[in-house]
Amino acid sequence: MVTTDSCERNDVYMAACPCRDMLDLLANKWSALAIGALEAGPLRFGVLRKTLEGVSPKVLAQTLRKLEDNGLVDRTVYPEVPLHVEYSLTPLGRSAAEPLAHLRNWVESNAGKQ
Amino acid sequence: MVTTDSCERNDVYMAACPCRDMLDLLANKWSALAIGALEAGPLRFGVLRKTLEGVSPKVLAQTLRKLEDNGLVDRTVYPEVPLHVEYSLTPLGRSAAEPLAHLRNWVESNAGKQ
Repeated sequence: MVTTDSCERNDVYMAACPCRDMLDLLANKWSALAIGALEAGPLRFGVLRKTLEGVSPKVLAQTLRKLEDNGLVDRTVYPEVPLHVEYSLTPLGRSAAEPLAHLRNWVESNAGKQ
Repeated sequence: MVTTDSCERNDVYMAACPCRDMLDLLANKWSALAIGALEAGPLRFGVLRKTLEGVSPKVLAQTLRKLEDNGLVDRTVYPEVPLHVEYSLTPLGRSAAEPLAHLRNWVESNAGKQ
């Protein structure tokens, strides 16, 4: 994702701002949970799938792919038999983990209060 | 939304935890933008629609309805001609606005860095 001339500075309220795509990616239940799960360290797909209860393999794969494409997650393949693939946060992903933890913590503290 | 016996404490990683619904509602682009727009004060539907560039009337109405149903937004109808409807944050909505502002600010500061 590259900032274009469509806006002088990032503004999530502008439809044409490239940062809208990043908001769409992170303001998402499965992204918020996947990034949170990876905060403790690299995980295999199967462990992520069990940790994010209720996620389908297809949706988890799509989520991880988008996070990888946007520089938030690294996918490392270890040439073992059987193949060993691990997902980990990039420095940008570790940075994004902070506001997402804030959101998850708010939800856990406040859901059921209404 | 009422906390049930399905979990002892709120845990967004548990599929059966009622807080999952709140995460799904807030970890959403349009919810994050609508709650942010309402931080400055009550707004009419038309103003919200213009502020959240690119949102369709249908999706905005659905978003506001879900936020209202979950106690985050109040909908006030003023008996005027023409009818005047305003949306505002409840105390719970103002509380939720904090982590969402954190997320929007992170996106505006970091999108394009990858």
